Amino acid sequence: MAERRLRLGMVGGGRGAFIGAVHRIASRIDDRWELVAGALSSDPERARASGADLGIAPDRAYSDFREMARAEAGREDGIDAVSIVTPNHMHADPAIAFLEAGIHVICDKPLAAAPEQAQRIADAVKASRARFVLTHNYTGYPLMRQAREMIAAGDLGELRLVQAEYAQDWLTESVEATGNKQAAWRTDPTQAGAGALGDIGTHAFNLLSFVSGLRPEALLADLQSFGAGRLVDDNAHVLLRFQGGARGMLWASQVAPGNENGLRLRIYGTKAGIEWGQENPNVMTFAPLGEPKRILTRGGAGLGGGSSQSTRVPPGHPEGYLEAFATIYTDAADLILGTNDGALLPNIDSGLEGMWFINACQRSSQAGGEWVGR
Amino acid sequence: MAERRLRLGMVGGGRGAFIGAVHRIASRIDDRWELVAGALSSDPERARASGADLGIAPDRAYSDFREMARAEAGREDGIDAVSIVTPNHMHADPAIAFLEAGIHVICDKPLAAAPEQAQRIADAVKASRARFVLTHNYTGYPLMRQAREMIAAGDLGELRLVQAEYAQDWLTESVEATGNKQAAWRTDPTQAGAGALGDIGTHAFNLLSFVSGLRPEALLADLQSFGAGRLVDDNAHVLLRFQGGARGMLWASQVAPGNENGLRLRIYGTKAGIEWGQENPNVMTFAPLGEPKRILTRGGAGLGGGSSQSTRVPPGHPEGYLEAFATIYTDAADLILGTNDGALLPNIDSGLEGMWFINACQRSSQAGGEWVGR
Amino acid sequence: MAERRLRLGMVGGGRGAFIGAVHRIASRIDDRWELVAGALSSDPERARASGADLGIAPDRAYSDFREMARAEAGREDGIDAVSIVTPNHMHADPAIAFLEAGIHVICDKPLAAAPEQAQRIADAVKASRARFVLTHNYTGYPLMRQAREMIAAGDLGELRLVQAEYAQDWLTESVEATGNKQAAWRTDPTQAGAGALGDIGTHAFNLLSFVSGLRPEALLADLQSFGAGRLVDDNAHVLLRFQGGARGMLWASQVAPGNENGLRLRIYGTKAGIEWGQENPNVMTFAPLGEPKRILTRGGAGLGGGSSQSTRVPPGHPEGYLEAFATIYTDAADLILGTNDGALLPNIDSGLEGMWFINACQRSSQAGGEWVGR
Amino acid sequence: MAERRLRLGMVGGGRGAFIGAVHRIASRIDDRWELVAGALSSDPERARASGADLGIAPDRAYSDFREMARAEAGREDGIDAVSIVTPNHMHADPAIAFLEAGIHVICDKPLAAAPEQAQRIADAVKASRARFVLTHNYTGYPLMRQAREMIAAGDLGELRLVQAEYAQDWLTESVEATGNKQAAWRTDPTQAGAGALGDIGTHAFNLLSFVSGLRPEALLADLQSFGAGRLVDDNAHVLLRFQGGARGMLWASQVAPGNENGLRLRIYGTKAGIEWGQENPNVMTFAPLGEPKRILTRGGAGLGGGSSQSTRVPPGHPEGYLEAFATIYTDAADLILGTNDGALLPNIDSGLEGMWFINACQRSSQAGGEWVGR
Repeated sequence: MAERRLRLGMVGGGRGAFIGAVHRIASRIDDRWELVAGALSSDPERARASGADLGIAPDRAYSDFREMARAEAGREDGIDAVSIVTPNHMHADPAIAFLEAGIHVICDKPLAAAPEQAQRIADAVKASRARFVLTHNYTGYPLMRQAREMIAAGDLGELRLVQAEYAQDWLTESVEATGNKQAAWRTDPTQAGAGALGDIGTHAFNLLSFVSGLRPEALLADLQSFGAGRLVDDNAHVLLRFQGGARGMLWASQVAPGNENGLRLRIYGTKAGIEWGQENPNVMTFAPLGEPKRILTRGGAGLGGGSSQSTRVPPGHPEGYLEAFATIYTDAADLILGTNDGALLPNIDSGLEGMWFINACQRSSQAGGEWVGR
Repeated sequence: MAERRLRLGMVGGGRGAFIGAVHRIASRIDDRWELVAGALSSDPERARASGADLGIAPDRAYSDFREMARAEAGREDGIDAVSIVTPNHMHADPAIAFLEAGIHVICDKPLAAAPEQAQRIADAVKASRARFVLTHNYTGYPLMRQAREMIAAGDLGELRLVQAEYAQDWLTESVEATGNKQAAWRTDPTQAGAGALGDIGTHAFNLLSFVSGLRPEALLADLQSFGAGRLVDDNAHVLLRFQGGARGMLWASQVAPGNENGLRLRIYGTKAGIEWGQENPNVMTFAPLGEPKRILTRGGAGLGGGSSQSTRVPPGHPEGYLEAFATIYTDAADLILGTNDGALLPNIDSGLEGMWFINACQRSSQAGGEWVGR
Repeated sequence: MAERRLRLGMVGGGRGAFIGAVHRIASRIDDRWELVAGALSSDPERARASGADLGIAPDRAYSDFREMARAEAGREDGIDAVSIVTPNHMHADPAIAFLEAGIHVICDKPLAAAPEQAQRIADAVKASRARFVLTHNYTGYPLMRQAREMIAAGDLGELRLVQAEYAQDWLTESVEATGNKQAAWRTDPTQAGAGALGDIGTHAFNLLSFVSGLRPEALLADLQSFGAGRLVDDNAHVLLRFQGGARGMLWASQVAPGNENGLRLRIYGTKAGIEWGQENPNVMTFAPLGEPKRILTRGGAGLGGGSSQSTRVPPGHPEGYLEAFATIYTDAADLILGTNDGALLPNIDSGLEGMWFINACQRSSQAGGEWVGR
Repeated sequence: MAERRLRLGMVGGGRGAFIGAVHRIASRIDDRWELVAGALSSDPERARASGADLGIAPDRAYSDFREMARAEAGREDGIDAVSIVTPNHMHADPAIAFLEAGIHVICDKPLAAAPEQAQRIADAVKASRARFVLTHNYTGYPLMRQAREMIAAGDLGELRLVQAEYAQDWLTESVEATGNKQAAWRTDPTQAGAGALGDIGTHAFNLLSFVSGLRPEALLADLQSFGAGRLVDDNAHVLLRFQGGARGMLWASQVAPGNENGLRLRIYGTKAGIEWGQENPNVMTFAPLGEPKRILTRGGAGLGGGSSQSTRVPPGHPEGYLEAFATIYTDAADLILGTNDGALLPNIDSGLEGMWFINACQRSSQAGGEWVGR
């Protein structure tokens, strides 16, 4: 831990934003980063004020991300990486600017609001020597890494079934019409590109892919916009057919009263099943066929591997959302420093796969609910 | 409770059977029935022995259900009703024989192994003055009746979503090939007519219909037979489109390790959501939008109505599967005696609806997973 | 199962009673008993009416239990056993009358309202050839029998700790003052002999003794009567010192809002711990030191023994309070028929031990909370 | 949040320590502190190396806390506060040194290893203008603050019962004998002063006091040392009598297999009860008498107040142990800056009360389990 802290910049995340603050906390928890620059807002006044809030020196509180990329690339003490925490349609331009400047990019998900934007990012990643990390933060949960290891090791046997769901209730009513800022951009087709599908469905899809290693060969989606006047989907029912024969269901909803942030994953194979839910993330059940079910705990008795790595406190001392997010930041630091091969980090491929998922669901649903292959 | 006990006969359910014993316990719990006759086996020796086990007089231990129907119809102390607990393909003939003899029929689910059999039963019901009850026993759970009442009263607002699932693991391996008798007939297309879909999927479908009042206008199914050499589905993924615009997912599986009898129902409307699972059936959560979630308990504080009726012991004293099943029997007795209008009892229409569900799923899946309307 | 049904009589349990109905259902579930006689009330009119409700012939609907004992003992088809379901202070006289008549006795708990009554019963048991069973029904739960077996087999190592509790909330307010009949006698020192201690504390104490095999060498109790005007304890805090060095806590309360029937048992040894709660009785956790915790289910995967015996339906099909109670009745039938040695059945010794517990707690508390030895 | 970060020093917490790292993460989460100085070890070499690990300048990596207090007090950019994270017997001397130097002290719990040490700290606090905060971190959980508010507002009515417990299993075997460094000092009477009682019992006691506002007038304890050769208690059974008539039980154990960090609090009053467990800290149940139980979630629907303050992410995004700890640090920063009155922060009085608790339990148990008043 004697390495220097990496220098971080941020695009977006000014006053009133939500996910920007989450990224900043996540970057601090393991003390591997310090925030030194930002284009927190495109309004100069607001950019300066937000920067001051966060202890950013006035000359590094930019209002133009292109200027920031240029300036930081030119400084001896320039940022090592930038976090992009803008709405989805505003990921591509800054990501490309920093990648072209040779600065590593940590980008919020989904990759973009439209496939064309995503492709441009992918091209820039390919052309750059800089790294690109996508914050599918739920992969940072120790027990999800444990599950991935167990599946890779064959503990579940041959996989047959995946049941993934991500249910929320905050858009049950059309709060975007009554001034909820987070709701406003997330239900705007231009800014978000999709509704529940992009905001949370991609998380569920990414997590199931990460844990199971399965890759769909086709899917079928039935999307709804239940909220009055809503222009994006707020509920998605998806059937999945995976390469190799496994099958899956994925449910993403923002109109299911009583669900706060109900990301849940269940995977079943010929030999065992696992079940995990994000709201109490320190436990996972593991059911070997013909034996009593086990309750696995983060770093708990009888476990090593993923469940114990990237944790900070002993079992029974719950870690949560922020710690899982922090693990992404810590792994990103190690990736940049070359002490981690990034095998567990969501990257541009994860982003493109998520864009395929969104797009395939939209095409399937628009066709009335037909199977869409790759 | 001063009424006489009704006299019950049984077809099927001899030594070695499973569900017959369940029906008998259910019939005894509330002391409304006494078992006095049976065609417990078509083998005369076995029929007599099984009858003796159960205290049935030798002259009423028949080996031929048609003879039984005739004889019992002719006795002054003949049976009031018969329970049919044979494999699915053996429901129609005895049901029709007793209906024609004017004897009430309590029939296990699903209605039949094939649509044609189901239709013959339906015709017989129509032609008979006798009652027909189908033992979709999960509707006997007090909290499911409570949920039905709440939805009918508008407590959930306009319904949008139903998530129903019924997961088991006992067919993860192809135990039908190794002498498991229950598995053998349940995986035989002729005797069962369907696999997970008929055995448990119809329960889930019936329960969601009973509770929500929703009726599908179309469905789409992806059926699998994961078990080696298995001839029926052991996993069903179903999407539902309900009349009025609500949407649903239904998952039925017998190959999900760690699931014993995981029937679970979640329903969401514009105003609230409910969640219930059969394995701990004495609790249900009710989440009114914008308020803390409530834990409703069978007969518990602040509840009346369905949650308190048809219960036998106070809240906190768990009732289970057998009590819910007993409620079907008790309601059937009241229906026969004319003291209950049968509004809560699954009947021939429930049975036909279940057959539609099975058949539509099979057609959808055989077509590669297409939408099938009514 | 070809044996004849045993003939059962009942003392108490007429119209308006609670536990009598529970005993009757329990006796029916496994079809081993039929109720044929009763002294359901000391009021002749009421006795006859209650008998008629239950299908008891008029000449066997007694109003005097002594007459019933005499008459039934003299009949060729007289009852095999009698269930005594009167308030605690009314256990001794009928129990003795039937024991003296050579009729087996199944008695509700606690044994009596006062030590002197208990001793008289014990003397009568000793003098009689008839059997005496005390319905500490919670010992009938399969997983409690499983736990007992596991502890006896050394699966927990040397026992160190027992945490037992039984919490309810129905006496939070002094409902005995407002016409609640169940509350009235249970809070009357003469009829009940103790409050929470006798009504539920003895259940917790009996269960911990049954499962652990531990026997206290001393205890200390702090009893309270929180309810306004209440004459018996409604909350009991008890410390236990067991022979051999283990220690325990026992909490019994009827004034803990939110607790319906919260009987819970946790036992820890040098090698493992177990935890179980009555409100969801089909699961128990087993935590071997240094390994993941297991979820054991009634009759579930990887278990045999107690968890699978005396069950009626497969795992995942919840059994509850009535089934556990039924197991007591079934075991009692087997005991009477000589096909069961009664090792698992609570008997007169359990009853005397419970009386010691009540009395020792009362003496301890009256002394200001001092240790009381045996 | 535009204020400068406060400057933090640390005594203890060098390489190989546990709780020091927790304090450091907690101090970083809300970005209110920066660690700039330390006496991380009394060994100069180790102090320097540990300091380097943490980015502390060499001239501020002291090996003598007295020198550190002196030097930092004299610097213009000297530390605002010091965190003391040494074993219990090493709290007093550094705390006094910094208090005398006018530097605020954040001290780990319990206050000290012996009453005399505690008193010396208390005297120094009284004599100093500096603040003293004791890290009873569990009071930082939002739902515990919510519970405190609800009780203060009378939502539970008059309090009657408290059931507090803190169970772990990591000392089931005598791991202190086999090189476990954390176990070694925590089971050394000189360094720790008490076993489970001091390490975790004081947490449970502090939390119940914080939430309920109750103050014991007497207690009785039965302490055990189950571990072979163990010199301190590893299990504590405590009965509590509170001023005003409420009663409580407290169980602290480090020998209960299957318990990782099972701090649990249940409080019951005349009108309602609450239940909470630390291992899933984002939910708490609230049971108003006669109404369905509510599941309250951190920042969740229908709640404001404590449950929503000092949280960083929306409901459903679990916060955990580190965030609750961070809240103590953030409140301490506000206390020092004068923007918070410290009403929610554990302080010297909490520390002295905890020492009374430990000492009274030890005296009670040594006397064979007698009541000990204040």
